[in-house]
Amino acid sequence: MADPLSFYLDDKPQPGTGSNFNVDYVIHYKLPTTSVNEKEEAEAAFIQLINALSAVGFATEVRPGGKSSLLVFTKIASEKLLTSQVYRYRIQDWLFGVRTSAPNQDLSKYLEEEPVSEAERLRLTYLLITKSKNEGGAGITAKVGKWKYVDSIFPLHDHAFNHRWIKAWSGKYFLDEEDLNRIRDKFGERVAFYFAFLQSYFAFMLFPAAFGFAAWLILGKFSWFYAVVNSLWSVVFFEHWKTKEVDLAVRWGVRGVSRIQHPRPQFQFEREAQDPVTGEIVRVYSPFKRLSRQLLQIPFALACVVVLGGLIVSCFGIEVFITEIYTGPFKQYLTFLPTVLLTIFMPTFSGLLTNLAEKLTKAENYETHDAHQASFIEKIFVLNFITSYLPIFLTAFVYVPFGKLLVPYLDVFKVTAQSFTTMEKPVTKSWEINPDRLTQQVIYFTVTAQIVNFLTEVIVPYAKRKVFKKVQEVQSEFSGNGHELQIKDHPDEADFLKRVRNEAELDQYDVTVDYREMVVQFGYLSLFSVIWPLAACSFLVNNWVEARSDAMKIAIGSQRPVPWRADSIGPWLHSLGFLSWLGSIISAALVYLFNKHDINPDGTPWDISGWALLLSILFAEHIYFAVQLVVRSLVQKLDNPGLQKERAERFAMRKKLLEQTFGSHGHDADLTEEAQGPGHVSSGERITREALEEEARVNATKTPEQLFWLRQRGAAETIEIGRGLIAEVAAANQTKSS
Amino acid sequence: MADPLSFYLDDKPQPGTGSNFNVDYVIHYKLPTTSVNEKEEAEAAFIQLINALSAVGFATEVRPGGKSSLLVFTKIASEKLLTSQVYRYRIQDWLFGVRTSAPNQDLSKYLEEEPVSEAERLRLTYLLITKSKNEGGAGITAKVGKWKYVDSIFPLHDHAFNHRWIKAWSGKYFLDEEDLNRIRDKFGERVAFYFAFLQSYFAFMLFPAAFGFAAWLILGKFSWFYAVVNSLWSVVFFEHWKTKEVDLAVRWGVRGVSRIQHPRPQFQFEREAQDPVTGEIVRVYSPFKRLSRQLLQIPFALACVVVLGGLIVSCFGIEVFITEIYTGPFKQYLTFLPTVLLTIFMPTFSGLLTNLAEKLTKAENYETHDAHQASFIEKIFVLNFITSYLPIFLTAFVYVPFGKLLVPYLDVFKVTAQSFTTMEKPVTKSWEINPDRLTQQVIYFTVTAQIVNFLTEVIVPYAKRKVFKKVQEVQSEFSGNGHELQIKDHPDEADFLKRVRNEAELDQYDVTVDYREMVVQFGYLSLFSVIWPLAACSFLVNNWVEARSDAMKIAIGSQRPVPWRADSIGPWLHSLGFLSWLGSIISAALVYLFNKHDINPDGTPWDISGWALLLSILFAEHIYFAVQLVVRSLVQKLDNPGLQKERAERFAMRKKLLEQTFGSHGHDADLTEEAQGPGHVSSGERITREALEEEARVNATKTPEQLFWLRQRGAAETIEIGRGLIAEVAAANQTKSS
Repeated sequence: MADPLSFYLDDKPQPGTGSNFNVDYVIHYKLPTTSVNEKEEAEAAFIQLINALSAVGFATEVRPGGKSSLLVFTKIASEKLLTSQVYRYRIQDWLFGVRTSAPNQDLSKYLEEEPVSEAERLRLTYLLITKSKNEGGAGITAKVGKWKYVDSIFPLHDHAFNHRWIKAWSGKYFLDEEDLNRIRDKFGERVAFYFAFLQSYFAFMLFPAAFGFAAWLILGKFSWFYAVVNSLWSVVFFEHWKTKEVDLAVRWGVRGVSRIQHPRPQFQFEREAQDPVTGEIVRVYSPFKRLSRQLLQIPFALACVVVLGGLIVSCFGIEVFITEIYTGPFKQYLTFLPTVLLTIFMPTFSGLLTNLAEKLTKAENYETHDAHQASFIEKIFVLNFITSYLPIFLTAFVYVPFGKLLVPYLDVFKVTAQSFTTMEKPVTKSWEINPDRLTQQVIYFTVTAQIVNFLTEVIVPYAKRKVFKKVQEVQSEFSGNGHELQIKDHPDEADFLKRVRNEAELDQYDVTVDYREMVVQFGYLSLFSVIWPLAACSFLVNNWVEARSDAMKIAIGSQRPVPWRADSIGPWLHSLGFLSWLGSIISAALVYLFNKHDINPDGTPWDISGWALLLSILFAEHIYFAVQLVVRSLVQKLDNPGLQKERAERFAMRKKLLEQTFGSHGHDADLTEEAQGPGHVSSGERITREALEEEARVNATKTPEQLFWLRQRGAAETIEIGRGLIAEVAAANQTKSS
Repeated sequence: MADPLSFYLDDKPQPGTGSNFNVDYVIHYKLPTTSVNEKEEAEAAFIQLINALSAVGFATEVRPGGKSSLLVFTKIASEKLLTSQVYRYRIQDWLFGVRTSAPNQDLSKYLEEEPVSEAERLRLTYLLITKSKNEGGAGITAKVGKWKYVDSIFPLHDHAFNHRWIKAWSGKYFLDEEDLNRIRDKFGERVAFYFAFLQSYFAFMLFPAAFGFAAWLILGKFSWFYAVVNSLWSVVFFEHWKTKEVDLAVRWGVRGVSRIQHPRPQFQFEREAQDPVTGEIVRVYSPFKRLSRQLLQIPFALACVVVLGGLIVSCFGIEVFITEIYTGPFKQYLTFLPTVLLTIFMPTFSGLLTNLAEKLTKAENYETHDAHQASFIEKIFVLNFITSYLPIFLTAFVYVPFGKLLVPYLDVFKVTAQSFTTMEKPVTKSWEINPDRLTQQVIYFTVTAQIVNFLTEVIVPYAKRKVFKKVQEVQSEFSGNGHELQIKDHPDEADFLKRVRNEAELDQYDVTVDYREMVVQFGYLSLFSVIWPLAACSFLVNNWVEARSDAMKIAIGSQRPVPWRADSIGPWLHSLGFLSWLGSIISAALVYLFNKHDINPDGTPWDISGWALLLSILFAEHIYFAVQLVVRSLVQKLDNPGLQKERAERFAMRKKLLEQTFGSHGHDADLTEEAQGPGHVSSGERITREALEEEARVNATKTPEQLFWLRQRGAAETIEIGRGLIAEVAAANQTKSS
């Protein structure tokens, strides 16, 4: 595959992409290149690998993978094994309430009715490879423990599908139901949920884009009206997505799958205990120990604030000093200093902190993959929050209002600057607030940074791979003579293997990176768009491109993802809610601070009263809560097709079970008639009564209770006696009133 | 039954209480005492009543009910009818997910396993009497439409049980599981939930009582530490109750019964439509029309604020003027004026507004009883909020801080007072803030008002009935001669009928009144206890008495309630959450205002900065949110017996169904073996491989895909070839490094 990009632009299929040779998964097995010991270890592990795969029912083929790796191709050996897996997991789904009905007994008929999708096949195959031996799997987990040479386990792309996919999407504005369903069938619900979210977000973005444009033209910046509408929009979007998520989950048949947790192989248990409910043996880790480790999140968050905040504040100070005060030599070069510093240190620090976050999350030792992921995402969110929003917070709430007070402290740079120059005249000028800084910064983050992001996400990895390959080729040309490993592929397979080797070198696709990007963007809109209402227009364009570039990233830039299921966008939902809420506060504060108060270039302190600022925040926040309550109750009242489907399914299932149990209404109908047919009961009643009367005449030893119910013989007598009593009362009253 | 109170103090059973004569329900049928037309109408309706009851399967007996009413006794005629009803409703429960398993086919065995409790019998009987004819009931609804002469439909008390109940409770501090279960079996889950809540609340109250006492001794009033602990307590209590509620609902087998809605007979539909899900015909009322009527709640709330607020403010003003400024004549009498005004007008206005609330709720025209009740409770909560808390709000946030500014406006009273007197010397003195007013008021509401409440709730109705009866007797003695209606009871029944006539005259028990009282009390604790930390001690004592007096109220003061089911305390839960949240704000404001600032008796404006006040509120509220989040996640992690039971039941039920479907593991076990037994599959695999090989030799026209999987014959060959490749790589590397 010479050039993956051109592959998607041409219509001509690339060599080797026509077929996947029925391969389910490819295991990329990296060989050590240094010591002999390691070679032996790798060999032993390889033997174990093949045996483990074969033991659970995989057919295997091995081929050379490149200079120092192997490619192990696996497929499920018999269709019967696959069927049994499908059946087993569908029953599990039903046990967990994901499916409303139990799988049919007649297997072949059942699979005809509900065929196995590609995603389902790949998911179950992956589980069979990775789940532990005592759960019936091969227990192979990439890069962990004895499987450290297993670099990755990945399915092969369906390039014909990818080709159609990218072509189709690049020609349309909106993704429809069918587009998402296709993604779901190929890449699983987890990826499909991302695109569904992106699509929903994109469609909702139309409103703030149009309204923002109008506001920009008419209302200008810092309009309270824009802030209110924007906040309202974010509430509506958030609440809508919450129900949409449930709707989609039901329609895709995955509602509740988050309850079926995949155990983390790395989980370390303290002891084994019996589940009080199911009686199964479960592995236990002390929740208090975990809690004590979770508490480390607090120092971690503080560390993030100190390290990243410190970096940002320093660069901010240097930048202000150089661009707005400094007048000495090399100013044109020094202007780039803060950018350079940020570019060097920010990724370094972020990387370090991300590693730390990963270590912390591992130390928290979660039983399940989802819990682990959620905890990690929480930490990442803190990191991103600081790197993304702190610069604007600084400008809005420190630089502008307190600039005049704080800038003198920048003298530390002045002294440094003065000592580096030999000139007599001062190298600084008196400082004035740059009134456009805030807007410039927001524009930078909402336009420039989005473009930069796009480039780093799509173009850079591609370029990197190209360069890396070239370097390797050149390297091997230089070093390569004599015993260089020669790969001789069978001509039938050569193209295919070349393509698989390419895919093996690609990165794994991580959907959380894409979610993070969207959530951060939502934050800009919710928190800061009141500064520059055009932001949403930029996001609208960006998100159209984003959906396509993410599709490209999956199709060309990454290994095909394992098609996991999901029933929501997971922990990101909380982040969205948090940002939406914070937006109400920050927008109010921004509007209060900047709406009436033109920025004084001379930096004199404004006429800001603390209580009015706090009052507007308090006010905005509580209106936000009230609106959220109303919107939530309204949105919940709306029926959606997914929930209707679920209701109908449950209704039908239970009706069916009822019929099965009682033989098509037989038993139940009897009861119904008896309960509803008045004649039947009351005549039966009368017969009993008569029989009892007979008895009463015979047997005078009745209790008062029995006699009480025998005084009036049936309804007719009760009526008669009642009428008598009514007449008596009327007579008594008439006597009285006369 | 001469004296109901003495009945519960003696051990000797009162006459007529030994047996309920197998009566299920008594219908108290009031006869008109004026016109002849009405007499005929009442007679016709009576005939319809008896016929309707008889038609659905009730045995009936009629007896004179008093001067101008009849007592219709009903019981289900045949046990078979009852059984069929039990079966029918248990199936409905199962369809709605309240029961995890469908009722057994073998009815008699099934009812032995799960016998019909008294509450269940009475509930189903009541439904049979009241539900509409097309649902198979008699369609009798008290006081509505043609049944306007039906005054009440009530079951008879089990006085032996009530006697034991009151005796047992008056001798113990804590109610246990069994006590609540007994209540549940007699009076249904709705009443049992009230007592469960009361018990939980009482037990939780121990902490604030002890802590409040300590705080009162050590910290004094307006301690921020007390406020924080108190707020934390309210969060913990609220979150605990939320899970406790679910736990109880599961243990009582009623989780989800709020989904089974009882239609309101008064509901008026606009059109009939088909349910898109179940295909049933449903009655529809436009939600937009309803919404437009729901919006009337806003003017209603405003009206409450204006009317009640106006009354409270006026009385407050008069009180301040008379007690703190006025020095003229009749001061000792005039002091009572505001109390008199409040006592006269408050119940009048409250009553009017409650009526209005009822009318509004009726106009909102809900389909179901629960929705109607929830909407009504919302309105009542607004009313109660104003009457209960506004006086203290006024003192804390208006009288004390702004008294000096506002008191001059009371001159309007001064002029009035001056004009009524002929004395020369001024009748007023210069005003000083009464620093103890706030505390006095809180003590009044948390101690005095609770006692007054107890008296009005228990003693007054009892005294009223006594007096009313005496008056009636005296009246009939005066008028009674000649044609007075003489009731001649059969001697066997005389005592019983006398007792039933007594019960017919009692009020209906309304559990919402009791909930309201507790919720209002929780509000005092959450909002104002920082003013007087001893409040919780008073509540602790009060609530012990409350549980017993409520029990007495049910046992003696009310007709036996229809044993409805419930799965929570319903809309009061929201009220509790709201008060808990508001408490965080109000406490913070109170602490800020009064902690450092001793009340200046000269009324000079304090040194209060608005921003600091707002900041402390903002701070307190957000700490509250954070704490709530943490407590919620912690409480949710705790397992409770109810949820465990539910999990176990579902697990067992599904396992059972699975076994039924597949014949005791037969089918499933096969699959398991196949999936897990490695030998079986891989040998099967090998066989397939060998067969394929044979084919391959015969047939050379295989596709490359087929050939790909035939190059290595089984795991052994893959391993062999893999080892060769590993060796090659190692060799190549060694050459390179050497």
